[in-house]
Amino acid sequence: MPESTPAPASAPLAAAPVRTDVLIIGAGPVGLFAAFQAGVLGLQCELIDVLDRPGGQCTELYPEKPIYDIPAVPGCLAQDLVDRLLEQCAPFAFPMHFGQRASSVAEVERDGHARLLVTTDGGKQFDVAAVLVCAGAGAFAPQRVALPEAAALEGRHLHYAVREVARFAGKRVVVAGGGDSALDWALALRKVAARVTLLHRRDGFRAADASVAEMKAAVAAGEMDFVIGMLGALQCAPGPDGEQLAAVEVRTREAPLTLPADELVALYGLVTEPGPIAHWDLELRAGRVLVDTTTYESSRRGIFAAGDIAYYPNKQKLILSGFHEAALALRRAYHYAFPDKALVHVHTSNNATLKERLTHA
Amino acid sequence: MPESTPAPASAPLAAAPVRTDVLIIGAGPVGLFAAFQAGVLGLQCELIDVLDRPGGQCTELYPEKPIYDIPAVPGCLAQDLVDRLLEQCAPFAFPMHFGQRASSVAEVERDGHARLLVTTDGGKQFDVAAVLVCAGAGAFAPQRVALPEAAALEGRHLHYAVREVARFAGKRVVVAGGGDSALDWALALRKVAARVTLLHRRDGFRAADASVAEMKAAVAAGEMDFVIGMLGALQCAPGPDGEQLAAVEVRTREAPLTLPADELVALYGLVTEPGPIAHWDLELRAGRVLVDTTTYESSRRGIFAAGDIAYYPNKQKLILSGFHEAALALRRAYHYAFPDKALVHVHTSNNATLKERLTHA
Repeated sequence: MPESTPAPASAPLAAAPVRTDVLIIGAGPVGLFAAFQAGVLGLQCELIDVLDRPGGQCTELYPEKPIYDIPAVPGCLAQDLVDRLLEQCAPFAFPMHFGQRASSVAEVERDGHARLLVTTDGGKQFDVAAVLVCAGAGAFAPQRVALPEAAALEGRHLHYAVREVARFAGKRVVVAGGGDSALDWALALRKVAARVTLLHRRDGFRAADASVAEMKAAVAAGEMDFVIGMLGALQCAPGPDGEQLAAVEVRTREAPLTLPADELVALYGLVTEPGPIAHWDLELRAGRVLVDTTTYESSRRGIFAAGDIAYYPNKQKLILSGFHEAALALRRAYHYAFPDKALVHVHTSNNATLKERLTHA
Repeated sequence: MPESTPAPASAPLAAAPVRTDVLIIGAGPVGLFAAFQAGVLGLQCELIDVLDRPGGQCTELYPEKPIYDIPAVPGCLAQDLVDRLLEQCAPFAFPMHFGQRASSVAEVERDGHARLLVTTDGGKQFDVAAVLVCAGAGAFAPQRVALPEAAALEGRHLHYAVREVARFAGKRVVVAGGGDSALDWALALRKVAARVTLLHRRDGFRAADASVAEMKAAVAAGEMDFVIGMLGALQCAPGPDGEQLAAVEVRTREAPLTLPADELVALYGLVTEPGPIAHWDLELRAGRVLVDTTTYESSRRGIFAAGDIAYYPNKQKLILSGFHEAALALRRAYHYAFPDKALVHVHTSNNATLKERLTHA
């Protein structure tokens, strides 16, 4: 158990900490079911997720993948599973905060009780009795350009997402990647940019046939370029706002190419990474959080883990295991939220108030 | 771990033992999902249940009770849950044996591997690599008449179920109980019996209003009697087939009554009892099977428990916990069934053969 760390005193924060019982990190299937379970137990909770919508991997990576092994759901698509879980937790209307990554956690004391103060990189703070980490394979992050020049350009002339199309007006843009995002953005940006070049390592795409056809037509019509090759280096030049992009050097099967460019948009897809949780002083096994198999509590008091991010001997990465882990974790968390109250076993069908809530949502 | 017990050599058995990988005891929700999981893992299994149909408590005790806390099933009736689970495991078509109670288990060796030989009180034997006990609250049994005279009459003149109406033709019958079964059978038996008396401790019933009204009308019409009171004693007399019933003594709020009677039908409802499993040398806690929380294996090798019958610290009687426990237990059981094979993590959606099976059932 780590020493109690004082809360950062001077971090610039948007507002007073949100005070609730449990912070659920990750709004994938397990996080959503955890919210429902919290509601059933009479716990208040809030959810955060680094993505901009609920569903986690199911929504982000394989919404149309069929899943057969959810008990009593003989077959559904991943997105349907998410939709069912959203419906199930909807009656409790717990706040969900998107685009938020939990960056740090600190032990604090309130009225003689141990609590946790979680700070996100979006500047939010949560003052909670317990944290339940349901972060799946970890936080999603764009796969980055592995070139030494990349760091100085990132966020200015090297982009891993297109937030605002107008920003690219009149610019020479290289879009790198071969998936739907790369094709769709190359096609969209050609309408405002001075010139768009799509760069991909081969003449084959992980994208909708219609998008590929549209891109090829646009190339044939001279509206954009398509180059087969790999990023070799980034040529930079000093500019008014610091280092700026001058050209992208491309390795091809034949002679290397140099594409003059103002902006590089690299859309290589998402990768998962443990994220800041790796630095939370939790006992880890291969990047996952080691938990006790009766409470699913980590080595740090009040921090629990459920789902793929949790590790214990014989752990299976089954969504149904995450449901169980979350349910048990929250029962222990209840004692942290209400140290003086006994938790009564709740049957959803016997509790009149709860039944009212669940049937008239 | 108990000593290896040799299989009973001379028990009269109906047929050769059924050889399979896993015997699942209990065909309630957890047992049914366990069968599905076994199928997904490539294990062969058979199910037994003491009842005469699948569904366990859900079907037997509260088929129309709404259940809200099955993950991704925002609300369903208990029987619907059973139907969904039956649908889910149907593609594997594993045999289910009803009206069978597992009475004993013995360690045996086959080709150098430890296996278990389970014998049921219906005379069946199963030669298996592992046993998964999903017996819920235990085996169902009728609540018995707690009088010393009861034992000698049981199965002859004292009945806990009506199997054959004709058996009561021309007899003086006392039906004891205040639920739907007691009322329905009292009404049905009055048509064949010499006389039917319904005996219940109070003038209030746990039964459909229509049945209560029908019973009261039958009493008013002189077709049957209703007595408020409790069983006091059973008067017996020697008869051609041994001891037989002569009269039922009833304690009432006023003077005791004696009801001349040939047959007593006691319908006090079902109770659960641990059943023979209590004598299987498993480490128990308050009648439940103590299991390891990473494998859900009991103190006896190869015998696992999942669902309400399983016990461990912080155990919650949630159906969703049973699903997880069964899934992990079967992964360990796999190594007993196939000691030389490594278990590959199976994603139902990535396995072509399995997908074919699950979608074209």
